Amino acid sequence: MRQSFDEHTKPSFGREHAPLIRQAMAAQGLDGFVIPHEDEHQNEYLPAANDRLAWATGFSGSAGAAVLFKDKAAVFVDGRYTLQVRDQVDPEVYEIRDLVDGGVPAYLQSEAKAGWKIGYDPRLVSPDALERLKTAAAQAGAAMQPVQGNPLDEAWGAERPPQPQAPVVPQPLDYTGEDSAAKRERIGKSLAAEGADAALITAPTGVAWLFNIRGGDVIRTPLPIAQAILDADGKAQLFLDPAKVTAELPAWLGNKVRLEPPSALGGALAELKGKRVLVDPALSSAWYFEALERAGATVVKGADPTVLSRACKNPVEIEGARRAHARDGAALARFLAWVKTEAARTLPDELEVVRRLEAEREATGALKDLSFDTIAGAGANGAIVHYHPSRRMARRLELGSLLLVDSGGQYLDGTTDVTRTLAIGYPTSEMRDRFTRVLKGNLALARVRFPAGTTGSSLDALARLSLWSAGLDFDHGTGHGVGSYLGVHEGPQRISKVPNTVALRPGMIVSNEPGYYKEGGYGIRIENLQVVTEPAPIPGGEREMLGFETLTLSPIDRDLVDPALLSPEEIDQLDAYHARVLEMIGPQVDPETRAWLETACAPLSRAA
Amino acid sequence: MRQSFDEHTKPSFGREHAPLIRQAMAAQGLDGFVIPHEDEHQNEYLPAANDRLAWATGFSGSAGAAVLFKDKAAVFVDGRYTLQVRDQVDPEVYEIRDLVDGGVPAYLQSEAKAGWKIGYDPRLVSPDALERLKTAAAQAGAAMQPVQGNPLDEAWGAERPPQPQAPVVPQPLDYTGEDSAAKRERIGKSLAAEGADAALITAPTGVAWLFNIRGGDVIRTPLPIAQAILDADGKAQLFLDPAKVTAELPAWLGNKVRLEPPSALGGALAELKGKRVLVDPALSSAWYFEALERAGATVVKGADPTVLSRACKNPVEIEGARRAHARDGAALARFLAWVKTEAARTLPDELEVVRRLEAEREATGALKDLSFDTIAGAGANGAIVHYHPSRRMARRLELGSLLLVDSGGQYLDGTTDVTRTLAIGYPTSEMRDRFTRVLKGNLALARVRFPAGTTGSSLDALARLSLWSAGLDFDHGTGHGVGSYLGVHEGPQRISKVPNTVALRPGMIVSNEPGYYKEGGYGIRIENLQVVTEPAPIPGGEREMLGFETLTLSPIDRDLVDPALLSPEEIDQLDAYHARVLEMIGPQVDPETRAWLETACAPLSRAA
Repeated sequence: MRQSFDEHTKPSFGREHAPLIRQAMAAQGLDGFVIPHEDEHQNEYLPAANDRLAWATGFSGSAGAAVLFKDKAAVFVDGRYTLQVRDQVDPEVYEIRDLVDGGVPAYLQSEAKAGWKIGYDPRLVSPDALERLKTAAAQAGAAMQPVQGNPLDEAWGAERPPQPQAPVVPQPLDYTGEDSAAKRERIGKSLAAEGADAALITAPTGVAWLFNIRGGDVIRTPLPIAQAILDADGKAQLFLDPAKVTAELPAWLGNKVRLEPPSALGGALAELKGKRVLVDPALSSAWYFEALERAGATVVKGADPTVLSRACKNPVEIEGARRAHARDGAALARFLAWVKTEAARTLPDELEVVRRLEAEREATGALKDLSFDTIAGAGANGAIVHYHPSRRMARRLELGSLLLVDSGGQYLDGTTDVTRTLAIGYPTSEMRDRFTRVLKGNLALARVRFPAGTTGSSLDALARLSLWSAGLDFDHGTGHGVGSYLGVHEGPQRISKVPNTVALRPGMIVSNEPGYYKEGGYGIRIENLQVVTEPAPIPGGEREMLGFETLTLSPIDRDLVDPALLSPEEIDQLDAYHARVLEMIGPQVDPETRAWLETACAPLSRAA
Repeated sequence: MRQSFDEHTKPSFGREHAPLIRQAMAAQGLDGFVIPHEDEHQNEYLPAANDRLAWATGFSGSAGAAVLFKDKAAVFVDGRYTLQVRDQVDPEVYEIRDLVDGGVPAYLQSEAKAGWKIGYDPRLVSPDALERLKTAAAQAGAAMQPVQGNPLDEAWGAERPPQPQAPVVPQPLDYTGEDSAAKRERIGKSLAAEGADAALITAPTGVAWLFNIRGGDVIRTPLPIAQAILDADGKAQLFLDPAKVTAELPAWLGNKVRLEPPSALGGALAELKGKRVLVDPALSSAWYFEALERAGATVVKGADPTVLSRACKNPVEIEGARRAHARDGAALARFLAWVKTEAARTLPDELEVVRRLEAEREATGALKDLSFDTIAGAGANGAIVHYHPSRRMARRLELGSLLLVDSGGQYLDGTTDVTRTLAIGYPTSEMRDRFTRVLKGNLALARVRFPAGTTGSSLDALARLSLWSAGLDFDHGTGHGVGSYLGVHEGPQRISKVPNTVALRPGMIVSNEPGYYKEGGYGIRIENLQVVTEPAPIPGGEREMLGFETLTLSPIDRDLVDPALLSPEEIDQLDAYHARVLEMIGPQVDPETRAWLETACAPLSRAA
């Protein structure tokens, strides 16, 4: 078992830990302290040792922040976590606020008092975020003050888990499709073209991609915690805990990469005096900027040069993604057949559902890790976006309800992420109406053709139109980027209402996951991963158009589809998808599963 | 006749005037000089006295820039003007470049030489644009240098037309729906809430709206060139040329508004010492910022506080817009009947078409001005986006071709902007296919319901989907804001691929104008104005949704519609629109026009 159902936090954390942090704050003369979710590496998933927000508040979500003043405190979460936070955080210790609407800056501006000193850890805050905090504090007459020692870390003390030291291994060319030396030369040239002498790569994902290495320091993602300096000539220094360096690593990295311990980073930055150094203000904390400025280097603020290259998968990576999805789809088919036949009779609880799915993925023999903790939301739990089953919260399946399962696997050849919503027994007509509207959105976003330069912001509404027209919507983004045996959430592309200037480019993998959530009732989400295809002509047209190839291969529950709501074009599209699922997955599964799959993939048009 | 067909510029302008400007540059020791299209007031339409770009280059479009180096020069235009610029500018004097892709900064960065001094007029450049110019010049080792006297103005000399002095008149409450004192108090309070003591309003549109006044200094827009300082308590100073002050104006403005001549502005800014003053860096030139900083005021950069209030029309303004569109629609119906019957036999030229439409609008007795020079593009001229007929370019109508007419009127109760594309004789099946796809986009954007917080960027793709799916697109935005007897293009809302963070709000008027252009062949555009409606419930839904009410009342040419490409829902939508047009416009027109209108508005569903 990889997934645990124990809760690592308790609502009492706030009451227990906030006083300890306030004590350490007071010792440093601070009137307030800002606690972001992000750690030193600006990762989404954190080593337990760095999940400061969870320890301070009890809130265990993947995004958020807290502010502790000497006399009051608040925790900030986004729309995904509004239900979870109420369950995990003691509202008498932390007022619950919206992370996006105003967020921390608005709280500082309205609640800080003139003359207050508000601490922040410069290793945890990006310079852009810091700028906003400073402006907000100044409007209240308060001042932001960098701390030397993090008062939360001091309060945490001996209870704090140790830093991870997972071995770092090569990721072979069969999976990456491009040699690290070639990547470094290509990225190095782009640095030179922009007038930079070097780039500081601080995001573990960027380091993993650039050097074709993988690690295990961060849960659910094969990331090595490491930093690098890449010179414009393709040479590099890689800062990595010696305890994590495996025997094969030095030869794999070659003689143009100097391995250094993390303690050498400060000295290496100091040696960049007089150089023009590119640093990404969205991915690197304020500490790096300050260190470079102290060293006398010229900081060039710009996007991490590995980000766009990493996002646009090469043919080898795309082929790997197809293989990973075919393998994952077979495991999922066995699981879905079990849910729709056996589980619909025995009505197990969510934990059993999660265990069964994990066992099917394990049985592929290729699973390196889950790509995130499986969400199995039965009935009302399905309406809690980003819910994870726990012993305390888990519900049993019930007839006449829905089961939402969002899951994924990390394989050497690709990362998967798929959501299916299943009717247990007979669904209501409302459930079928809502499900079909979500499906219409998913289909629209799968079939769209669009010109070069189009961003995910321009396409987001396609996934919502059929819900909007019925007075419905969902409160999360429609799609996120996905890595190649890397992060299951990776930028810079996304499909969202939020303005985004990054155009979708061939090779980018994005999720397509509209949903609908009825609080206290049920949740619906349909999620496929899809890869952006090369621009191609359309007969009779004038401009080549990009499009999507759906990678995920798993049947959509026909019990939840109301064909009367679909156009003939949509029915054809769904039937063609199901035919492809059967063709790709059928040969991989046992006869019993295959028989189920044939029914599950039967054309709707035959029924209509 | 209001519209002239004479060209005010000649391609020889570049060859004649560039040497004169270079001479004046040299006298100031400048190696280069930047010439934006914008004037001192950052207006879209300029008084002839301020159209420096046209005088320097010959290019007469409504957006662009030029850079004159001592040894080379370039003119910069956007996608709308790529054909026009080739016609108007001598390419041996000015290299033609893209305004958006790199634009002026990229040119400075790649073409300026180290040590060069590049002049700019701080009254003509916004601080944000200036920052980009400075960064680009610095990368080339050159420096931007503010000029005291504009070398172009010196070169222009006695030939330059005088500044306009049109009388400034009250705009009655019947049309504005809100008293100026109430507006000033409301906006003043919002200033105080943001911690500002005053706002500097430099955009003539903002001044016109805030004080409920109109003028005539700028062609096609009832704008008074004026500036104002609004205090947080609602008191104001209005800087206005005394020659423009009409007898009724002082009483209309009341005793809380101090009228001052423009020459008093510098002194008034100096008096803001120690105050926190809001200025909009998108609407106010760098000169204002520098003047306030010299005065010792604290500049607060923020959106002009009148912009959002002005964009959200109140019930009186919306009712005015409906009246203006009903009146304009009747004039347009008479014009369209003439085109489809008489002109389709006599095949007049574009100038005759423009004159006829203007005469119909004049005949309403309510026309204050055109809202822009009418675009009447016959055949291949229709493919030139933002083409304006001239004696030299005008084409005659031809059988088997299309005529695109984009026009609008300024009425006291509203500003109109409408485009109709008409078949002259029998259209080809390609024309009908393209037209119907454009129509599908227009209908999709008219019927969409959407939640609060949705921006125009999220809706833009709806107008393009049917084109994209056929490998087609159009290279301009889908919609712009429109004023209430003010600018025909006004922000902050727009419907465009370009990311935009301004949500659509009830009362905002936007255009809905997808198109298709076949270079050398024909142009298609269908444009209606529509107003954002209040959030309203949808039966069976959970969330209130905003939507649009179409203001424009004018038939869509059924000869160009291929019903086979429309869904039953789209046919119903078009039929319902036509029924409304007939109901509203029919009673206003003569029996002959009415007979034509009845045929033009007949339901498609009957034919299909």
